[in-house]
Amino acid sequence: MSSRANDILQRRRATGSASALDRWLLRSMMAALPRAGYEVVLWDGSSAGEPTGLRARIHDRAALRRVVRNPPLHFGDLYGAGRITVEGDLVTFLERTYAAVAAGRAAGDSAWWKLWVDPAPNSTSLTAARDNIHRHYDLGNDFYADWLDREAMQYTCAYFPEPGMTLEAAQRAKMDHVCRKLRLKPGQRVIEAGCGWGGFALHMAREYGVEVSAWNISREQVRHATEIARRLGLADRARFVEDDYRNIRGECDAFVSVGMLEHVGPDNYGALGEVIHRCLAPQGLGLIHTIGRNRPGTMNGWIERRIFPGAQPPSLGQMMAIFEPHNFSILDVENLRLHYAETLRHWTDRYLAVFDKVRAERGAEFARVWHLYLAGSTAAFTSGSIQLFQVLFARGGNNQLPVSRRDLYA
Amino acid sequence: MSSRANDILQRRRATGSASALDRWLLRSMMAALPRAGYEVVLWDGSSAGEPTGLRARIHDRAALRRVVRNPPLHFGDLYGAGRITVEGDLVTFLERTYAAVAAGRAAGDSAWWKLWVDPAPNSTSLTAARDNIHRHYDLGNDFYADWLDREAMQYTCAYFPEPGMTLEAAQRAKMDHVCRKLRLKPGQRVIEAGCGWGGFALHMAREYGVEVSAWNISREQVRHATEIARRLGLADRARFVEDDYRNIRGECDAFVSVGMLEHVGPDNYGALGEVIHRCLAPQGLGLIHTIGRNRPGTMNGWIERRIFPGAQPPSLGQMMAIFEPHNFSILDVENLRLHYAETLRHWTDRYLAVFDKVRAERGAEFARVWHLYLAGSTAAFTSGSIQLFQVLFARGGNNQLPVSRRDLYA
Repeated sequence: MSSRANDILQRRRATGSASALDRWLLRSMMAALPRAGYEVVLWDGSSAGEPTGLRARIHDRAALRRVVRNPPLHFGDLYGAGRITVEGDLVTFLERTYAAVAAGRAAGDSAWWKLWVDPAPNSTSLTAARDNIHRHYDLGNDFYADWLDREAMQYTCAYFPEPGMTLEAAQRAKMDHVCRKLRLKPGQRVIEAGCGWGGFALHMAREYGVEVSAWNISREQVRHATEIARRLGLADRARFVEDDYRNIRGECDAFVSVGMLEHVGPDNYGALGEVIHRCLAPQGLGLIHTIGRNRPGTMNGWIERRIFPGAQPPSLGQMMAIFEPHNFSILDVENLRLHYAETLRHWTDRYLAVFDKVRAERGAEFARVWHLYLAGSTAAFTSGSIQLFQVLFARGGNNQLPVSRRDLYA
Repeated sequence: MSSRANDILQRRRATGSASALDRWLLRSMMAALPRAGYEVVLWDGSSAGEPTGLRARIHDRAALRRVVRNPPLHFGDLYGAGRITVEGDLVTFLERTYAAVAAGRAAGDSAWWKLWVDPAPNSTSLTAARDNIHRHYDLGNDFYADWLDREAMQYTCAYFPEPGMTLEAAQRAKMDHVCRKLRLKPGQRVIEAGCGWGGFALHMAREYGVEVSAWNISREQVRHATEIARRLGLADRARFVEDDYRNIRGECDAFVSVGMLEHVGPDNYGALGEVIHRCLAPQGLGLIHTIGRNRPGTMNGWIERRIFPGAQPPSLGQMMAIFEPHNFSILDVENLRLHYAETLRHWTDRYLAVFDKVRAERGAEFARVWHLYLAGSTAAFTSGSIQLFQVLFARGGNNQLPVSRRDLYA
């Protein structure tokens, strides 16, 4: 750590005064972020933007040159490295940046926003999928346990229908909301594609009396889930399989996937549709819960490369490639975008409470990177650049459908 | 009438015994409808299919040759002309036909189902749209008043959340369901695109205290709506404009369209999106209620050509062409397919109660055609070949969103 801190100091000293070019780059960048509502200060104190108390500092010349070249990717890397720092609320800083980029884009008066559009994301072939998921989810269960809800370790959007709910209550509400949409009845067979640490599968088995077969390619998560099932005496009703969703077999009355589709990639939606078509009983219901977008586009480059390799949140139109080929009928779509922002605020609060522990165990860069990731995701949901869709569907010929959605709210 | 009946008798006499070719055509047609659950009888008594008591009769050779060539189009025309008749429940007959066609298509063991797929539908340019709508909606308000609900003349899907509701109660429930989804508040400005006889606009103005500007290209409907508004003392709060949706101007807090999109055609979705983008206030909500499909396809040819010229129910994916270009965010989709089947059963019962009057006033062919249209639409909804979507949306940057949908069911 101290050697890294030294390195930063070295770079800072070596940079010297900002040149005319440095200052021009800074002014150009801020001109492309109209009314961003913060200032950006260079290593020698030169600055641009509005002095509102919210402030980013760029600590060396190389950092300036890099962030100007590919802001969505390099800002994250440089923030992680401590070569860019933010004084004031990080979420507000990012929300204002997103809003300014969107405003600049809408005004069309600068090509700079185009830098925020990113090239094609990582591959999601069977082996690549395993690598991608390993990089994110196998950081150690303890890491996540420190800031996710303590009951079910749900690493997906919670549901806050009432003000003031705890994260634990909101994750329970989310799971119950999904189970109610699926109209689960005791004895039914459920297939869950992408089951995280198993909290939702165990909730369904325990609270709804169903038999769950839950699939996941993260070894650590499957091991954790299997152990908890055994401990809770639910091993006969919640079975965890370490395998890819494309290998799912068996018939089910409900097919559910919460937070997996983001990792599937549009090229594989046909394959996922095949799996559902193969498994879903004639009168069955299915639900996919996923981060999505208002229109097709790519993920923020830094999150896609450094945090969630292969992540590709779909538009609703893109999702139809799962359903249309097999004549599945969409029954209900709900957008829970602002619930994800609230979920992320809870996660961030808990994360910051253990920040020093994370820094001590994993280093300052890792600790900063995860803070930025949580803050950036919050800002992406509050700014509306990403959505959270729950899509309920049935086979086209199924007439055993719920009459209304009133029962969801009884 | 009697000359037409004579004509049929003439044809029947002239046809003589069914030939070997006639019988082969009949058997081929029935072989492509596996387990259809009815029999088809030719003019000379020869038959194929299952003798279940449900029976279609083809009364002359030319009718047989025509129905085999293009069943979805010619069945309707020949039924209307009385050259094909059905003994037993017409909806059941059509449901079984749809199911058999779908089974044959799924089995892939006959190319005959391909005949049910139809060429490109009619144009929906500005003038064509006026012609198309005129043909359907300007048949005379009295005709529709005889079998639609008596309160609001809603010629769109009703909502039956409780068993045993009357059509009037279910249409009121539909209107309230839409108003609740839009979270209408007194004093808000509403634009309605395609307003029928004005029943919904008047309901919104009266029950929710909003100011409605309602647009429609059917002169008879606009005249009717304006007259009712004046009579109810609502003329200051419900204004009816005889013009195309593409000419809609003004700002609104809610943009709503119930049963118009079917007539718009996918080529014009971009234009409709432009209109909404131009009119919707930053914190506004919009709702489109439309007949739809699980995947792109064309309308039944007979309905498209003879009943609803230009009708093209979209898939959800196709609808996204309205929303994606302007970054609208889909908040809620609900599929009310079985509610439309129930609505149509009510309409059919009422229609059959005035069938003799319709026949006396408009002729036997018109009376039969409308019976077939109502029965065929019922069968299309019960068989799942068409859907009913309500799509609620907001601008992408709007964070003043309903927390949950609980308030819809309070």
